[in-house]
Amino acid sequence: MTDTSRDLVLERVLDAPRANVWRCWTEPELMKDWFCPKPWRVTEARLDLRPGGECFNIMEGPEGERVENPGVFLAVEPGERLVFTDAFLPGWRPTGEPFMVGEIRLADADGGRTRYHARAMHWSEETRARHEAMGFHEGWGIAADQLEALARTL
Amino acid sequence: MTDTSRDLVLERVLDAPRANVWRCWTEPELMKDWFCPKPWRVTEARLDLRPGGECFNIMEGPEGERVENPGVFLAVEPGERLVFTDAFLPGWRPTGEPFMVGEIRLADADGGRTRYHARAMHWSEETRARHEAMGFHEGWGIAADQLEALARTL
Repeated sequence: MTDTSRDLVLERVLDAPRANVWRCWTEPELMKDWFCPKPWRVTEARLDLRPGGECFNIMEGPEGERVENPGVFLAVEPGERLVFTDAFLPGWRPTGEPFMVGEIRLADADGGRTRYHARAMHWSEETRARHEAMGFHEGWGIAADQLEALARTL
Repeated sequence: MTDTSRDLVLERVLDAPRANVWRCWTEPELMKDWFCPKPWRVTEARLDLRPGGECFNIMEGPEGERVENPGVFLAVEPGERLVFTDAFLPGWRPTGEPFMVGEIRLADADGGRTRYHARAMHWSEETRARHEAMGFHEGWGIAADQLEALARTL
């Protein structure tokens, strides 16, 4: 019954333990290292890990570009599932034009690896198509490579 | 710093105890009795009182009109605060064009009464204006009258 036609999905098996992948998503200092495809980088991150808690970062690019990404967490299930969106500021205040809900699911894979499921859910087909054209698959794929490389070292 | 320009607000002192007002908002059988201005009525309600839980009702009108209102709760602070939105189905799935976030705040007033603060927050000025033109003030005002009348009898 669920309509997934407005979703974009990345699925991987990451060669790192699930607990480490969770840490990379939830500890600001780790997140800064992998979250956007280099040479872009996250220069500031605030992660208040509870429903309605702040999920904020600033991305900076090599030419001095600077993008603020405000939002909140919707669900935090330690080690298993993280859901967040740009649609609210803390206090559940609607902000801007809502773009997406991100959902990360982690599960154990054999050999101490992690099944990694990343989903971007959109309010409209137009937004889904725009996100894909912005380079969802490449961008989230490179970020997943960076995530795996960092998680292996922890 | 908070931008409230896209909000619509109703404030009242209701002549009923706070616990009763809370029950009217959170018990489906009570909610059916007051939630929409009569002769419209709520014929079905499902209220799963937790962040991400279902907040669903069906309104029916005197000419056979039927409106389904799906959504989820965002925050549930018993006796004090209830936040909900139409922007998601359960599972945090974005749905349709998000219309509003509703926030209800209750506080004790003197004489066993309740200070009632109802706020509709919107993602755009256009939506706020449309909601106002749809009769926000009259509709939520009549519903508050009905709520008070019911809460006094409990």
